[in-house]
Amino acid sequence: MANPQNQSTEESFHITPRAEDYSAWYLDIIRAAGLAEHGPAKGTMVIKPYGYAIWEKVQTVLNAKFKESNVENAYFPMLIPESLLKREADHIEGFAPEVAVVTHAGGKDLEERLIIRPTSETIMYEVFSNWIHSYRDLPLLINQWANVVRWEMRPRLFLRTTEFLWQEGHTVHASEALADERARMMLEVYRDFAETYMAIPVIPGQKSDSEKFAGALRTYTCEAMMQDGKALQFATSHNLGDHFAKAFHIQFLDENNEQQFGWQTSWGLSTRSIGGLIMTHSDDKGLVLPPKMASIQAVLVPILIGKDVDTDVLSKMKELDAQIRGLSISTKIDDRALRPGEKFYEWERKGVPVRVEFGPKDLAANHAVLVRRDTGEKETVTLSDVPERIGQLLETIQKSLYERAVQLRTSKTKTLDTWDEFKQAIEEGNFVLGHWDGTRETEALIKEETGATIRCIPFDSKDEVGMCIKSGKPSKRRVIFAKAY
Amino acid sequence: MANPQNQSTEESFHITPRAEDYSAWYLDIIRAAGLAEHGPAKGTMVIKPYGYAIWEKVQTVLNAKFKESNVENAYFPMLIPESLLKREADHIEGFAPEVAVVTHAGGKDLEERLIIRPTSETIMYEVFSNWIHSYRDLPLLINQWANVVRWEMRPRLFLRTTEFLWQEGHTVHASEALADERARMMLEVYRDFAETYMAIPVIPGQKSDSEKFAGALRTYTCEAMMQDGKALQFATSHNLGDHFAKAFHIQFLDENNEQQFGWQTSWGLSTRSIGGLIMTHSDDKGLVLPPKMASIQAVLVPILIGKDVDTDVLSKMKELDAQIRGLSISTKIDDRALRPGEKFYEWERKGVPVRVEFGPKDLAANHAVLVRRDTGEKETVTLSDVPERIGQLLETIQKSLYERAVQLRTSKTKTLDTWDEFKQAIEEGNFVLGHWDGTRETEALIKEETGATIRCIPFDSKDEVGMCIKSGKPSKRRVIFAKAY
Repeated sequence: MANPQNQSTEESFHITPRAEDYSAWYLDIIRAAGLAEHGPAKGTMVIKPYGYAIWEKVQTVLNAKFKESNVENAYFPMLIPESLLKREADHIEGFAPEVAVVTHAGGKDLEERLIIRPTSETIMYEVFSNWIHSYRDLPLLINQWANVVRWEMRPRLFLRTTEFLWQEGHTVHASEALADERARMMLEVYRDFAETYMAIPVIPGQKSDSEKFAGALRTYTCEAMMQDGKALQFATSHNLGDHFAKAFHIQFLDENNEQQFGWQTSWGLSTRSIGGLIMTHSDDKGLVLPPKMASIQAVLVPILIGKDVDTDVLSKMKELDAQIRGLSISTKIDDRALRPGEKFYEWERKGVPVRVEFGPKDLAANHAVLVRRDTGEKETVTLSDVPERIGQLLETIQKSLYERAVQLRTSKTKTLDTWDEFKQAIEEGNFVLGHWDGTRETEALIKEETGATIRCIPFDSKDEVGMCIKSGKPSKRRVIFAKAY
Repeated sequence: MANPQNQSTEESFHITPRAEDYSAWYLDIIRAAGLAEHGPAKGTMVIKPYGYAIWEKVQTVLNAKFKESNVENAYFPMLIPESLLKREADHIEGFAPEVAVVTHAGGKDLEERLIIRPTSETIMYEVFSNWIHSYRDLPLLINQWANVVRWEMRPRLFLRTTEFLWQEGHTVHASEALADERARMMLEVYRDFAETYMAIPVIPGQKSDSEKFAGALRTYTCEAMMQDGKALQFATSHNLGDHFAKAFHIQFLDENNEQQFGWQTSWGLSTRSIGGLIMTHSDDKGLVLPPKMASIQAVLVPILIGKDVDTDVLSKMKELDAQIRGLSISTKIDDRALRPGEKFYEWERKGVPVRVEFGPKDLAANHAVLVRRDTGEKETVTLSDVPERIGQLLETIQKSLYERAVQLRTSKTKTLDTWDEFKQAIEEGNFVLGHWDGTRETEALIKEETGATIRCIPFDSKDEVGMCIKSGKPSKRRVIFAKAY
């Protein structure tokens, strides 16, 4: 393709520094890296090829993990009869304000309004009730990759868009314990994906009742810290109890020939995770991609004299490229007729982990220059060592991005016991580990006064007698408070 | 999973013979193989895991082919402002009667109605017009995997559903010739996919003006014959000329610094192709899958004495299974506590190409029994030869299914010159190669009287002076007439 990034040459690549305006910085990165842009209808998003390639990586990794745990992909209709959505009381209460409604189709007004799925519990479970009859039909383990629509008043690319892409897993089990085990197993899949692939450290834990999914018994979550100290909910996994099974008549005959309700889970990860990826690693020069999420892991830029292609340089570079690909490293040779500096900036903006520079002088000296995107460090490497060295660098970068994010989180997580300190720490963009009395009322008060919500009760939170940071009432353990995206 | 096919044990697996009722047979196959079922909203479809696995094969193969030809995946919004859809006159005229309309969202009536994409020309091209400025931005080569909605009055699983899944490619070029070359290149991708992977012989050709895509300059198509002699449009590729470029202001500065309109193509293949796959190969016992489209290529069924698992048989079978997988053949061991016969019927219904039967007697004799799904032929094979023999059988089955379909098509394609013969041949379910005077009027008359449409003007149709089969007026070449799905 003449122009792989599909960006106008007239477009601005200016990136506002984080320190100056964090929100502007985020949107500048997305534009400058060519990841996405707003669509014509309010709140919608066009995911450009370079951004969509990240989503394809997400799909590849998660599909393999789901399959390992016996989950099968399927596809359910997007249009849900309104009556189905209304079956589970908490669920409709949670989603009613956000739905988009089809009232007219095929040239006529519809008899029953159709809802574009905001999530698929209701339509799937209506169907599941016909699939499940006996304990032999359990567990039922289904996943779907789909688009969903939730009307957004304050849209923001990747983080909150009216339509977004996600996967939603839905399972049915013979007991609450088995459902809970599955819900936690899938949360662990997300945790591992966040930390091992996206290099995003997350805190796994349970949501408070006011923050849980509409219709769930318990919601588990992975919470990540962005560079401004705000939290991003990376992915959630819900133990739905038998709430939906009762509303949708999902019943089975158990081994004693008695009718039982099914126990369910649902769990999802969306294109929002790409927003988290961008905000965790990028810098003032542009996007920074962890090597495992990069569609191009190493870009090879021939240094040309003038604009003429040096055929010796190019043919040696192609040879080198083949050797690098031989190590299962994805590469791109950028032999466009542009000044090398222009190319360097472009691939820097696009966050490609390693750049290989190679010109006539390097050819003569039998070496190439490797440049790390994350640190900017350069090194000169003998040609025959280049492929292996790139492999090492990719591992180093993957690890180092994760560690850097852990360090930031550590430095911006405060264990506090007084309300004044709490308010200030939240104001300054920190996670606060604080005591909470366990009531919705106190949670609401804290949110109202500081904007902070309980992100989760961490799984690793220890029993510790204390007093609620706001009410002073007794508390048994600390929870994570933060402002959130 | 306890029940990989997600089918109720109470469900009927009866399959109506083709000869008795072809339409009932088709739906019976889909139910009995566990491919799909109707969704709650009219005309919608639930694609069950075993059916979705076929779609994932389609995606894997086509994605690789698209990538080879430099096409990149992206994602565009599903909701199209009504004003955009109306920009190209022929396009809106074609799609207006079929669209679903969102009038209400986020608790309010919308100021502008939003259309759920029936196809994405209009929304993509609005965006493309911002991406393209110079000849250097061309060609632009984009593909999208998505759901689309077209209101169907007579829905039919896979063949016509209100919502369906597809890929839609959209490209922009610097000249009409380049666009035409791309449109034909992508048709060739579909032809190869149909014949090499799906084992469906197709006739590539051009649509008549009345059958072309709404807004296209020329539509190319691959037409397949189903077992009842009716045609199925397998996939289409459109040369859009500059119709949309003019409506959406897709313009570029050429090398002489002059403004030019872009030349475009679009091309798509949908879940309808799975309907074609089912109807091409299946028989009265159930689904028949060509090996290249089968998610399970060989199923291993241990023959157990009573319902007890013979551990020697099972452990030898696992060893065999690992050897077969070593040849990149996808397998499944069915060790459920069911009678072997029950399992045989199930995998027969599901169209798994090769079945391996193996019990204590086979273990003692050091052999296994292989059964071909397409012909039912059985053979006894020494254990060490089993993996390689399965590989050979899969190749043979793939080839043989294609050849069988070609033979059927040959036997049901008539070259005719009289109107009486024509009517009878169409009535009896044939393709007819007949002369046509090239007018819409005659085409409409023929359709009215016989139900047959011009499926395509085959690329390999030779110049031949003749007289139109209906009007008697002069004609230069024969075209394919048939009733169609």
